[in-house]
Amino acid sequence: MKKIKILLICAILSVPLCLAQTKQQSIIEDFKPSTLNQPGQEFPKVNSQGYARFRITAPDAKSVVVTLGVPGVRGGTSLTKSEDGSWTGTTAGPQEEGFHYYHLTIDGGIFNDPGTLNFYGSTRWESGIEIPAHDQDFYALNDVPHGRVQQILFPSKSTKISRRAFVYTPPDYDKSRSKRYPVLYLQHGWGEDETAWTNQGRANLIMDNLIAEGKIKPFLIVMTYGMTNDVKIGGLRNFDITPFQTLMTDELIPYVDANFRTIPNQSHRAMAGLSMGGMETKTITLAMPNLFSYYGLLSGGTYTPEDIKDKSKVKLIFLSCGSFENAGSIRNTAVKLKEAGINTVSYVSENTRHEFQTWRRSLYELALLLFKD
Amino acid sequence: MKKIKILLICAILSVPLCLAQTKQQSIIEDFKPSTLNQPGQEFPKVNSQGYARFRITAPDAKSVVVTLGVPGVRGGTSLTKSEDGSWTGTTAGPQEEGFHYYHLTIDGGIFNDPGTLNFYGSTRWESGIEIPAHDQDFYALNDVPHGRVQQILFPSKSTKISRRAFVYTPPDYDKSRSKRYPVLYLQHGWGEDETAWTNQGRANLIMDNLIAEGKIKPFLIVMTYGMTNDVKIGGLRNFDITPFQTLMTDELIPYVDANFRTIPNQSHRAMAGLSMGGMETKTITLAMPNLFSYYGLLSGGTYTPEDIKDKSKVKLIFLSCGSFENAGSIRNTAVKLKEAGINTVSYVSENTRHEFQTWRRSLYELALLLFKD
Repeated sequence: MKKIKILLICAILSVPLCLAQTKQQSIIEDFKPSTLNQPGQEFPKVNSQGYARFRITAPDAKSVVVTLGVPGVRGGTSLTKSEDGSWTGTTAGPQEEGFHYYHLTIDGGIFNDPGTLNFYGSTRWESGIEIPAHDQDFYALNDVPHGRVQQILFPSKSTKISRRAFVYTPPDYDKSRSKRYPVLYLQHGWGEDETAWTNQGRANLIMDNLIAEGKIKPFLIVMTYGMTNDVKIGGLRNFDITPFQTLMTDELIPYVDANFRTIPNQSHRAMAGLSMGGMETKTITLAMPNLFSYYGLLSGGTYTPEDIKDKSKVKLIFLSCGSFENAGSIRNTAVKLKEAGINTVSYVSENTRHEFQTWRRSLYELALLLFKD
Repeated sequence: MKKIKILLICAILSVPLCLAQTKQQSIIEDFKPSTLNQPGQEFPKVNSQGYARFRITAPDAKSVVVTLGVPGVRGGTSLTKSEDGSWTGTTAGPQEEGFHYYHLTIDGGIFNDPGTLNFYGSTRWESGIEIPAHDQDFYALNDVPHGRVQQILFPSKSTKISRRAFVYTPPDYDKSRSKRYPVLYLQHGWGEDETAWTNQGRANLIMDNLIAEGKIKPFLIVMTYGMTNDVKIGGLRNFDITPFQTLMTDELIPYVDANFRTIPNQSHRAMAGLSMGGMETKTITLAMPNLFSYYGLLSGGTYTPEDIKDKSKVKLIFLSCGSFENAGSIRNTAVKLKEAGINTVSYVSENTRHEFQTWRRSLYELALLLFKD
């Protein structure tokens, strides 16, 4: 009887062990350096299934943990020390396609992986890793004509400093000296900054590729810092849009219209943003209906039909999110807005969540719809 | 007798102790966050004397050492653990004015300070700190019209990829649609990349300020990656200039001349570089005397009179370094070149060494001399 019990317990215990072992055995050993690694760095590596493998040198450390892991599994990936003093580990499962932020916890302190580039998110420069995606060609650096990403420093009386923005200008911008362009004002999310849409989002490459394929007419994209009242962690509830709205409407837009060859009117101006940038977009587009005619909320909430006071001023509402976010809400709202006679398009990115792969795809879909007249 | 001996030993031992104590007591407690800190970060801090103070959270670490310290003192600054689990320490002496790279060694591994921004140097993204300088206004972000830093991706058949360069365009570049400008091709040093001259060197701000003060006529600056054959640590001796020279002369210059409003001739084209970039400048200017007429070596060696085959093609040779570098060689060479009838200017940056403060000042001095005709 006791023997049977013990055997049963062993059998029960062996199931997860077997599963775990099967999982381990199924990892294909075709790991390559992540495309976001620093020059010459071998780790982190990613394989064709999306597993990520890390190697960190810290011979005297007690513990090295990577926050990246299977979503929902707390604690990320704990690395194991090798005899040579390096710490190595592979994520317990494949990671979702696209860009992910992560960091290391070394002996209780938070540091970045020296193997990879840093990206501004969560109000700090964090390590980034790129999991190859089935559709990655639309944001790849392809052999096509490239536009420019221009850093401008524009005066801001309201915030009393020169502020930075990046302006994407399409490949033909400097070929002609008279052609004028529509403009998309594109905002980052909470804890990110004006570098996010090009560094993490590859907005410039998405545009270059769309233009090269003849799928869109060229337009400018303007990206600036949207956390003007220094929202700290947990402080989003106290976010006051006013300083940013002033900056955008009284300073940035007039500066861009004066210094770039824009078509400076409402029907050739769009605003979109991801997450908190969507909240900013909603507030500013509704408060200033004569400024923008195309509105985009990317994982950034919805409009109700009642929000729109004058339908004739809205050429498009674009709502998107990842399929692991609240996709139902996006789709339902789009139906209601369309029923109310407002041109609305919803887009749900398959198998992604509140991350940049959702927003890269959303920008691609949005760009196809902008400035069609 | 024994007592006297002991007293003598005590007296001798007490001298450095007293000195050390005096030094400690003399530290002025007016520390402020370094201007290169990440948003909202308090540490690292710098005081008015140039001391740097660090605080790192890593409660379970055995050892945290900062490489920044008094030059010549091996091991940098060892931090001491506080009861709250943070590690704190102040450099043993004031640091020299300007920008310095540094990193942390935590339990034997090399990481960046999460408090500050990273800068590409030593073939990796490193922590940076800024020690206020008596002359810092010339590279400050002042309330003046600002030029742009334009990221371009240009095709390179020789290296088979799109390559990145940054182009500084002066504030008036987009005001006029026909005005054309001279161009300075400006190279970074070993282990750095095309981001160094603006991030560490503040080349764009130096230009903005010089132009605002009416001290120079505006020109463009083009900065691209000069380590085209992947020079690894210690590999500088094996550096082959050929791939970079091809890239520069056959691809970059024609691209810039075709896509920016340049004055595309030898008398309106300059090349300069710091350290390894000086070596590149020397090689390329001598190999291609019909391309450039102004040559600048910034802590990057010298020319001999014999190097210059046709004096009529050289409008200026500019040689510079820090006073803690081999300043005598720069000055002596300048005399010889001048005696040989070549317009040569030497500049020595006071109290700086092979670091960016030398090169910021050198760029300022060089800019004053360029394109005078």
